Amino acid sequence: MTNHQKLRIGIVGSTGYGGVELVRLLLTHPLVEITSVISSSSAGEPFSDGYPHMTEILSQPLDPVDVELIKSKADLVFTATPAGVSTELAPKLLDAGLKVIDLAGDFRLQSRETYERWYQKKAPEAAYLQKAVYGLSEVYGEEVAGASFISNPGCYPTATLLGLVPAVKAGWIDPDTIVIDAKSGVSGAGRGVSLGVHYSEVNENLKAYKVNKHQHIPEIEQVLSREAGREVVTTFTTHLVPMTRGIMSSMYAEINGTRTEEDFIALYREYYEGRKFVRVRNKGILPATKEVYGSNYCDIGFAVDARTGRVTIISVIDNVVKGAAGQAIQNMNLMMGWDETLGLMHAPIYP
Amino acid sequence: MTNHQKLRIGIVGSTGYGGVELVRLLLTHPLVEITSVISSSSAGEPFSDGYPHMTEILSQPLDPVDVELIKSKADLVFTATPAGVSTELAPKLLDAGLKVIDLAGDFRLQSRETYERWYQKKAPEAAYLQKAVYGLSEVYGEEVAGASFISNPGCYPTATLLGLVPAVKAGWIDPDTIVIDAKSGVSGAGRGVSLGVHYSEVNENLKAYKVNKHQHIPEIEQVLSREAGREVVTTFTTHLVPMTRGIMSSMYAEINGTRTEEDFIALYREYYEGRKFVRVRNKGILPATKEVYGSNYCDIGFAVDARTGRVTIISVIDNVVKGAAGQAIQNMNLMMGWDETLGLMHAPIYP
Amino acid sequence: MTNHQKLRIGIVGSTGYGGVELVRLLLTHPLVEITSVISSSSAGEPFSDGYPHMTEILSQPLDPVDVELIKSKADLVFTATPAGVSTELAPKLLDAGLKVIDLAGDFRLQSRETYERWYQKKAPEAAYLQKAVYGLSEVYGEEVAGASFISNPGCYPTATLLGLVPAVKAGWIDPDTIVIDAKSGVSGAGRGVSLGVHYSEVNENLKAYKVNKHQHIPEIEQVLSREAGREVVTTFTTHLVPMTRGIMSSMYAEINGTRTEEDFIALYREYYEGRKFVRVRNKGILPATKEVYGSNYCDIGFAVDARTGRVTIISVIDNVVKGAAGQAIQNMNLMMGWDETLGLMHAPIYP
Amino acid sequence: MTNHQKLRIGIVGSTGYGGVELVRLLLTHPLVEITSVISSSSAGEPFSDGYPHMTEILSQPLDPVDVELIKSKADLVFTATPAGVSTELAPKLLDAGLKVIDLAGDFRLQSRETYERWYQKKAPEAAYLQKAVYGLSEVYGEEVAGASFISNPGCYPTATLLGLVPAVKAGWIDPDTIVIDAKSGVSGAGRGVSLGVHYSEVNENLKAYKVNKHQHIPEIEQVLSREAGREVVTTFTTHLVPMTRGIMSSMYAEINGTRTEEDFIALYREYYEGRKFVRVRNKGILPATKEVYGSNYCDIGFAVDARTGRVTIISVIDNVVKGAAGQAIQNMNLMMGWDETLGLMHAPIYP
Repeated sequence: MTNHQKLRIGIVGSTGYGGVELVRLLLTHPLVEITSVISSSSAGEPFSDGYPHMTEILSQPLDPVDVELIKSKADLVFTATPAGVSTELAPKLLDAGLKVIDLAGDFRLQSRETYERWYQKKAPEAAYLQKAVYGLSEVYGEEVAGASFISNPGCYPTATLLGLVPAVKAGWIDPDTIVIDAKSGVSGAGRGVSLGVHYSEVNENLKAYKVNKHQHIPEIEQVLSREAGREVVTTFTTHLVPMTRGIMSSMYAEINGTRTEEDFIALYREYYEGRKFVRVRNKGILPATKEVYGSNYCDIGFAVDARTGRVTIISVIDNVVKGAAGQAIQNMNLMMGWDETLGLMHAPIYP
Repeated sequence: MTNHQKLRIGIVGSTGYGGVELVRLLLTHPLVEITSVISSSSAGEPFSDGYPHMTEILSQPLDPVDVELIKSKADLVFTATPAGVSTELAPKLLDAGLKVIDLAGDFRLQSRETYERWYQKKAPEAAYLQKAVYGLSEVYGEEVAGASFISNPGCYPTATLLGLVPAVKAGWIDPDTIVIDAKSGVSGAGRGVSLGVHYSEVNENLKAYKVNKHQHIPEIEQVLSREAGREVVTTFTTHLVPMTRGIMSSMYAEINGTRTEEDFIALYREYYEGRKFVRVRNKGILPATKEVYGSNYCDIGFAVDARTGRVTIISVIDNVVKGAAGQAIQNMNLMMGWDETLGLMHAPIYP
Repeated sequence: MTNHQKLRIGIVGSTGYGGVELVRLLLTHPLVEITSVISSSSAGEPFSDGYPHMTEILSQPLDPVDVELIKSKADLVFTATPAGVSTELAPKLLDAGLKVIDLAGDFRLQSRETYERWYQKKAPEAAYLQKAVYGLSEVYGEEVAGASFISNPGCYPTATLLGLVPAVKAGWIDPDTIVIDAKSGVSGAGRGVSLGVHYSEVNENLKAYKVNKHQHIPEIEQVLSREAGREVVTTFTTHLVPMTRGIMSSMYAEINGTRTEEDFIALYREYYEGRKFVRVRNKGILPATKEVYGSNYCDIGFAVDARTGRVTIISVIDNVVKGAAGQAIQNMNLMMGWDETLGLMHAPIYP
Repeated sequence: MTNHQKLRIGIVGSTGYGGVELVRLLLTHPLVEITSVISSSSAGEPFSDGYPHMTEILSQPLDPVDVELIKSKADLVFTATPAGVSTELAPKLLDAGLKVIDLAGDFRLQSRETYERWYQKKAPEAAYLQKAVYGLSEVYGEEVAGASFISNPGCYPTATLLGLVPAVKAGWIDPDTIVIDAKSGVSGAGRGVSLGVHYSEVNENLKAYKVNKHQHIPEIEQVLSREAGREVVTTFTTHLVPMTRGIMSSMYAEINGTRTEEDFIALYREYYEGRKFVRVRNKGILPATKEVYGSNYCDIGFAVDARTGRVTIISVIDNVVKGAAGQAIQNMNLMMGWDETLGLMHAPIYP
């Protein structure tokens, strides 16, 4: 732990699922070291007490949330905290000269008014909102490079936007007709306990929730509007699936003109050229969530229906990796000018 | 087993999941007795050998598929066979004077040409196709009453059509904009073995399949076209969910004019008035699949989005009950002029 | 709800899993009516608000825990409350002249001292302890008949004792060598929320818990000691299995003398003769938990190993039915002098 | 793929679960390269066609099973084939001068007669049996070092023996009283299809199988007998748990003398000193299978019961990693004189 050439990493909110996944992945990163795992609720306890799978792997005690202490131990901080916390904390960490990658939703929406309407919380100060770069790595990677403050995208927006942006930007689909039917595993709800994540309630069950009300809707619309060059509103439904990890966005839209599956595949492969973590599947092949399990991949497939003139786009990610910790590390790599794949080239675990 | 007032029931294909569910439910029906469980592959073996949960409950040996034998033992026959089998068998049973309720897809499509295109099999003879009444109980119950040959709807079409018909018939939604995102548990694939139903491949996985190609598409469109009074084509996607039972259809369409959730709820409650097995949920409540587990209910909920002018309709069933065996028994009740709920008033099993 | 010949039933703790299962099963019972569903925490709310699967089936408001009110509405009360509650409540209900079947552990142990050591709670008054009949229906059914106060067995003890009692009583196995390896689905932990029942923690996980410390150990030993005619202590381990329902007890013991599987089968079939809910399986067949899912059956199988001189006994139940609500209803039937199977002859639901 | 300093690896049976896990892990190993993925059934097809999660990661075509070809492409071969295949193949590969690590059961039993009785197959030639070193890495690592032919242990024996050997060797438990209750996820059954691995049959189900008949019994007894210095027979039961990965062995034995949990912990920590992949848990902590998910760890915990004089030992592994591919790579590392952890230091994936 004394290799001073390595970037020193602090993780605030390390006892949540996003935090422990940052630990798992960063342990394999050649250019960083985890110097502080931070928790407001469990400071002082060994990290592995709450996560016994980390026994003998990462056992150091949790640090409290103390900006001075963090500053003394870390160069870059991941904040994986509940909504509302980094609104206050991230500015302090930035003012202390630290690089910050925020995994919460606080800094994703440019409009304070929109944030407050959808999140029902006070928005961050405008000055810090303007500093925050939205870290959808394959779309805004150039802005991420050299930034010091990244707002990491939500899990649903990552799967959805990587599946829609190339077609929207190219004008191949009509943005007014987009319907997004998204499905998530239960880990997306975090480690907090509630009846909604009780095994006996979730197992052998499928449930729609927050229909038209999910706080990821304005995040998706903000990016689609930017890429389309005009305001876009969408229909977006989320479902809870009885599995731990994985998000699938099934997306539907009317095609402008006549486009085949081959056309879409070619368009997307060109758009994502050189980017290892987006795999555009061959004609006739649609990806399943388990095919990206535990990895930073986003896999995309297409089905064009000549009968209806619509395209169906299927996009899958592991919500805890590409939808959270993995993309955050990818953004760190881009910020630092490193190869974006460092620490992330894990093959999906199957079966 | 010698109460001669009871209707005598034969079940062809009793070793499949639809067949064994018919047995479970019919055992609680006051006006029938199961006199013959029939299997082409396992004739002679005790029924409970293949289904040990039926030990000491139904242990009689399986009969072979022999029309004369069936005729001698049964008054009404359920055929729960793979696609293509009842094309040949049902006419023989009908000619022998038996009542027939077919759970396969063979007799659902009025157009032989459409059947052959989607099923890749030879269609049944036209004369028998015309006799077959499509048994969507809450929609075509009057036609079912008094019929002697019922084609029982598919699982996806049941969930989907019960969720769409009232709005389409009323002209409240634009049929050209309907998108159906359907999800099913694994039992819908039947008891046959394949890599696609291997536990290790399905568990902790979510997968889209047969996109735009599912044989239930023409069945859905046939009914929607009839109810809309013009041809309707739809976008229909099926997903395999890691659970055993349950189907959810999440349906999206543009609203004609301005309609609230209360409007939809009122419309559907009026349409389904007096029908016990459709439960239209209160405003703000969307049903989950486990809330109908093991029962014949179809639960429906609505979300109207003023921002996009679309309605989201969520409809759930147990695919093995309302999507197969339960609705078949409901149709039997209607055919016989009995209360449609006989043998079917089981509360969902929860958790 | 005004059929005055029917026995009027109150259910205290009706919002727990045991309570809602009592409702599901009692709805099919021909001789009773549920007149009061009672909850200390949710009084006044419609029952189906907390359990939407009961929409339009049982929607009456929850009554508060008020002995006078209960007395006015019910003849027999099931108490399905957390440990410690019925210690106080059951005596009051009994004093009010009600019949009581208690599903909690409070009255299962004859020794107050043993109770206090294992439960870490104050034991009930001795007078009421003595009134309580331990309702292991197939073993102590004669004592249950005519009693007014039943202490319903725990889920693990039911599976375990039905699997051990005939062999212990017959002296065929050495009680000192019994090892019980028990496994349960998650619903056994109840509906309360905690990290231990969080879907993401339980799914794809198998965990041993409370080894040598489970409060069901003294309950098992009390019965084994009574049947063996001397003190018995056992090794008992519980495991949490990623499924909602089901308990399996895998039991090991040294055989006294030489006994074959056929011998054990014959012994058990004789012991349980005429009792519908215990199914002793044929030679070579071991039961699986899903084969009793949703039903009141306890299925038992044997494997004798000549190499080691041990017998392996596998016993399975649905923990919510035979392990709780179902056996409670069976005891009610026995108390009332009715056929013990009334309201309980549901075939297991499969798959 | 042309770094000639790297050890060239061939994998026979690469389309099974053991094979694809070898691929996943070897891709992260710094000193080897996978030069040939070999399949008798799918030769010529790209590897990722059968395993889409490997798209763009390992897409090379599958080679046929051709000893000359293998010899030209590889230095060391893993054979992950069904029982009976390597009986013939391994000798040919060895004769061709290749190093071989066999993941099948063919070479695990020293006695040809025992093999033929339990496997119902012809045993390998004695000469090759004698060459095979049983690769239980933490127990027989010294024999593995320098060997050219390793018989990799079975999944159940690995979990079981790592949990029993130190206590048996030390004479702390009575071998005649050992009862092993083992539980496995479904991937242990391999990728072949059958009703026994059908999702709808396994999900929400728990099943005991092959009681007293599992082919891993003689493997366990062979090692226990060697370590105890006398013949040991054991009671061993296997259960199928509704999860994909993970094995737990719950083991029971009478303690010789008086030993506390602290004593066992100290004994095991001393035995496994310096071995990273066995984690002996602290007093009062029992490991769960998910805590080793996707990793090469074997975690062990203890509960001593003064009342019965027995110890309960809980040992968990990921059956596909420590129970197959991971231990095989660990053995490769030991054979080659490398650090045994190379390519294997992946933290468990959680949740």
